[in-house]
Amino acid sequence: MDDRLSDIRTAAIIGLGLIGGSMARDLAARGVRVLGWDADKESLRAAGDAGAVHHPLPDDLRGVDQADVVVLAVPVLAAPDVLRRAVRAAPGARLITDAGSTKQSIIRAAEGLGIGERFVGSHPLAGDHQSGWAASSEGLFAGARVFLSRTHSTGDEAMGMAAALWEMAGARPEVMDAAEHDRRLAWTSHLPQMVSSALAAALAGQGIARGELGPGGRDVTRLAGSSPEMWADIAIDNAAGLSAALQAAEDQLRTMRHAIDSGSHARLRDLLAGCRSWHAG
Amino acid sequence: MDDRLSDIRTAAIIGLGLIGGSMARDLAARGVRVLGWDADKESLRAAGDAGAVHHPLPDDLRGVDQADVVVLAVPVLAAPDVLRRAVRAAPGARLITDAGSTKQSIIRAAEGLGIGERFVGSHPLAGDHQSGWAASSEGLFAGARVFLSRTHSTGDEAMGMAAALWEMAGARPEVMDAAEHDRRLAWTSHLPQMVSSALAAALAGQGIARGELGPGGRDVTRLAGSSPEMWADIAIDNAAGLSAALQAAEDQLRTMRHAIDSGSHARLRDLLAGCRSWHAG
Repeated sequence: MDDRLSDIRTAAIIGLGLIGGSMARDLAARGVRVLGWDADKESLRAAGDAGAVHHPLPDDLRGVDQADVVVLAVPVLAAPDVLRRAVRAAPGARLITDAGSTKQSIIRAAEGLGIGERFVGSHPLAGDHQSGWAASSEGLFAGARVFLSRTHSTGDEAMGMAAALWEMAGARPEVMDAAEHDRRLAWTSHLPQMVSSALAAALAGQGIARGELGPGGRDVTRLAGSSPEMWADIAIDNAAGLSAALQAAEDQLRTMRHAIDSGSHARLRDLLAGCRSWHAG
Repeated sequence: MDDRLSDIRTAAIIGLGLIGGSMARDLAARGVRVLGWDADKESLRAAGDAGAVHHPLPDDLRGVDQADVVVLAVPVLAAPDVLRRAVRAAPGARLITDAGSTKQSIIRAAEGLGIGERFVGSHPLAGDHQSGWAASSEGLFAGARVFLSRTHSTGDEAMGMAAALWEMAGARPEVMDAAEHDRRLAWTSHLPQMVSSALAAALAGQGIARGELGPGGRDVTRLAGSSPEMWADIAIDNAAGLSAALQAAEDQLRTMRHAIDSGSHARLRDLLAGCRSWHAG
């Protein structure tokens, strides 16, 4: 790994939000030269002031060809187009990767652009309901799982560099097939987000403020503060998997409601006991 | 208030779980003599060993008549029957109150027993997904809101003593009509509990362990670890209010699912933006 690490001398981070900004901070702290770009020029300037970006890139990404590694950290529906721009400007980068919450669409885009051998899909499990450069921090990925997904043709060098990149940030890489990733994440990540938001919407519709909730209710609705743009992207991009998961949550709510409506104490208690067993897991 | 406080020399705590156990610890620490009862004799013994209960009561509650104040802290469906036993054994207590999550049923029971003048319904917002004596702690109610509900005939002395009792434990009393309490709590407390459990049930049905979730998903499912018995009681007791709230959550999930199925990015983003505005309060 030391060999691979020493290979990453210059990295380009495209998108300096929570994920990209934190990665830029981590790499700069490890002595990597960081080229950075963000659509928001305030964030780009702030990242430069913080010493996390050594060289800002223009909107056409000219100069990105100096990077050994290019990391896309932009919303998932924007990523294919940004990838196209990055590939045009950096034809020779040895690794191009991303950090999005879905993996099939960006991998299809990489294959379509003919860069499958040098592309690795990445997804660090280090989100938060806060977003943007201001929410970024050094060490965000410390101990976090990061899923790595291959294209049809990802080479060993790119895979090794992607693992080294994330290990450099303290994360723990795990290889996962892109289709399996999107199917699983629909349940483990996208569904909890939507359930939290649906509860928030129901309470908002009733005119109940978040401050009226107890600590438990505040926990359940914490994710409702997440970025609407980012999550609309993820949900639309992973529609098939997420739709099935949402249906399952609706079914469970309806089952509980019917038990309550019919006064079936034992049935409701058994349902809730199953939930507690799962929680104790 | 100091006058009223000094009036509470001996209190009986019936039920030594999270709420009753914490109240016993608080009162004992403030110099009140605490009589205690619990169906679980291990808890009763442990509360004695911890110095939170000075005198254990037998199952027929003989001796409870020494108390100035009787506090019921038992599951809401058991409370009316325990109240009947307590009233039989302590005909003269100046305040009888409870700590349950619903208020209409216990108030109806108190009125039916002819003790409306001395009864105040209480509900401290200090729950947790953990339960039982082992989860109790001194200071649990510090800063917590506690709702106080009158019967048709609650007297000023009982109301003042109830406020003093909870202030003694550091809580902040607020008077609320029982019907309004149950209607609001269906949304602010009972619905978040059921939504968290429904998400847990959906994930359990898919064979996904809680450890696979990120920090956000773990927050959303934290309440799923709550006591099944306690929450089945609450849900059945507050069926009318909770059923409407569950229906609203189902409706919101379905609306999101339809936006996702139809690829309506703008519609989904607007829905999520509404949730974030609500979250920001």
